[in-house]
Amino acid sequence: MKRAPANWYIDGIISGDRQVLSRAITIVESTLASDRDLALMILNGVETVAQRKNSHRIGFTGVPGVGKSTLIEALGLEFVRHGHKLAVLAIDPSSSLSKGSLLGDKTRMEELSRSPEVYIRPTASSGVLGGLAHNTRQVITLCEAAGFDTIFIETVGVGQSETAVRSVCDMFILLMLSGAGDELQGMKRGIMEMADLLAITKVEANTLQAAKLAKAGYENALHLLLPPESGIPVDVLLTSAFDIEKVRLLYQAISQWFMAVRQNNWYHIQRTRQLHQAFDELIRQLAWEEFTLLHGKDIQDLDRELIARNINVHQAVAALRNQLKSGYESAL
Amino acid sequence: MKRAPANWYIDGIISGDRQVLSRAITIVESTLASDRDLALMILNGVETVAQRKNSHRIGFTGVPGVGKSTLIEALGLEFVRHGHKLAVLAIDPSSSLSKGSLLGDKTRMEELSRSPEVYIRPTASSGVLGGLAHNTRQVITLCEAAGFDTIFIETVGVGQSETAVRSVCDMFILLMLSGAGDELQGMKRGIMEMADLLAITKVEANTLQAAKLAKAGYENALHLLLPPESGIPVDVLLTSAFDIEKVRLLYQAISQWFMAVRQNNWYHIQRTRQLHQAFDELIRQLAWEEFTLLHGKDIQDLDRELIARNINVHQAVAALRNQLKSGYESAL
Repeated sequence: MKRAPANWYIDGIISGDRQVLSRAITIVESTLASDRDLALMILNGVETVAQRKNSHRIGFTGVPGVGKSTLIEALGLEFVRHGHKLAVLAIDPSSSLSKGSLLGDKTRMEELSRSPEVYIRPTASSGVLGGLAHNTRQVITLCEAAGFDTIFIETVGVGQSETAVRSVCDMFILLMLSGAGDELQGMKRGIMEMADLLAITKVEANTLQAAKLAKAGYENALHLLLPPESGIPVDVLLTSAFDIEKVRLLYQAISQWFMAVRQNNWYHIQRTRQLHQAFDELIRQLAWEEFTLLHGKDIQDLDRELIARNINVHQAVAALRNQLKSGYESAL
Repeated sequence: MKRAPANWYIDGIISGDRQVLSRAITIVESTLASDRDLALMILNGVETVAQRKNSHRIGFTGVPGVGKSTLIEALGLEFVRHGHKLAVLAIDPSSSLSKGSLLGDKTRMEELSRSPEVYIRPTASSGVLGGLAHNTRQVITLCEAAGFDTIFIETVGVGQSETAVRSVCDMFILLMLSGAGDELQGMKRGIMEMADLLAITKVEANTLQAAKLAKAGYENALHLLLPPESGIPVDVLLTSAFDIEKVRLLYQAISQWFMAVRQNNWYHIQRTRQLHQAFDELIRQLAWEEFTLLHGKDIQDLDRELIARNINVHQAVAALRNQLKSGYESAL
């Protein structure tokens, strides 16, 4: 595929050109080997600018039907009213890059997508080179370099994508329905432990009582968990996308959370930790590429023996280990 | 720690000596480097015998409170009545090897644990060398070599352990409560897709109506999923640990499932696939050990530069990649 030189993308992104931003994201998400060097050059070129932004990265999760898109739209508009520039990355675990769901997201967040201060982009969670977290991290870098100071990352609470999203955002918000039973809490504990804020959605006059009960229940459950590493207690908020006062309270809770984590330095501690993790993940991939480059033939041979049941899995691994050892010895 | 020679363990296991089996499991689960070679020798020594057993490995999962232990006890006794020898591996995600929960499980499955045809063993899910799946796979091998033809693997449906357990068993049974709402189904879809059989628990006269409704709901949800790779449709059964007829129906459903997957060869296809996966996991670990042995110093240096923000994560990875390349070139 014909591409412009790296500088064209870098300049375009930094000047805030959305079309260039979109094309750069496509290159970063590309699985073509020929796009890899260009993607690295673009990322290197914008990284310093992106870092200077001191952005706020906020992840949202919740089961299908919890009303994520509607609440994100209302909350996003509130961020815009406060002068923020917002990028919304919607992670769709069911879509691969080829089929994307941009149209779906656009129609779901109609008002938000019309705002000139907002950029909405679906991002695939399967088949991305380097995995979902790596891909999202790079897309965030590009968005921040393009001037977006607030990044929403939306994911569906059914799969593995929460952990990946948690690892790239500062604050993680869990959207919950009222009226969920005890069994649900058991299933959710793993996710609840990742949350910095719980928001009960769709709270209207007729659901207020159920929502208050649910709030008490979740607060109870939170008491059983270890306090979050951030040092900031987890709040449970009653929200509704159609009640501007409740949306404002949610906006304020988020702002206050960020003020608190900047004050106690958790913001920087967590970012540094995430940087470590990202590096670790990437070099593990590199290690694997390297290993298969050097020993791919041996691995294939052993695999064939294994399937023929001539050797067992322990012997196969031991054989490979011995080959590595003798490799060193012959090199001495 | 002083250990007997490998042959002593191998002979003891194959002759069905439970005390030796227990001690061998301890060695396989040991994190002491000195136990590693011995563990490999024992596993190699019993592997052929274990393979000959053509065992049935059945995984069970469900949220806390679903009544797993009670149902497993009743079902286990039914397996014993049909002449099977049963090993129950209880995976406790909250326990590490040091604190185990043997006593807890023993008291929970009192009648089953008194049966001479049954061996119950808790297995830790955290801090095991090579990960939970690897550990469980090795323990299963030892149990099968000791003559157990049926292996139950019990896990709690709240964490990552389901995926690991799914990867080492033939059949995966999901225990469900009746009266769970739509939200629960959303959360569980990932787990439901791994199940070969759904069993609704605690079905008594007063819960029968709710259970029938739940069954219809789950059957509906199953219709939305792709059919399982085994080619055998997923049944939803109403069960109760205190109703021997219902336990017998569950036993029969399991037996029929195994007959079907032996007939259509899925039993062997899946086992071969699991063997591939196991090998792949283990050599990935080996690759990482190897890589850090060779490049650990470089990685540390780059990590320091990264944290000091002298370089970004993309540059750090690119630098390591270049070092690898120049390593080859100088070796030519």
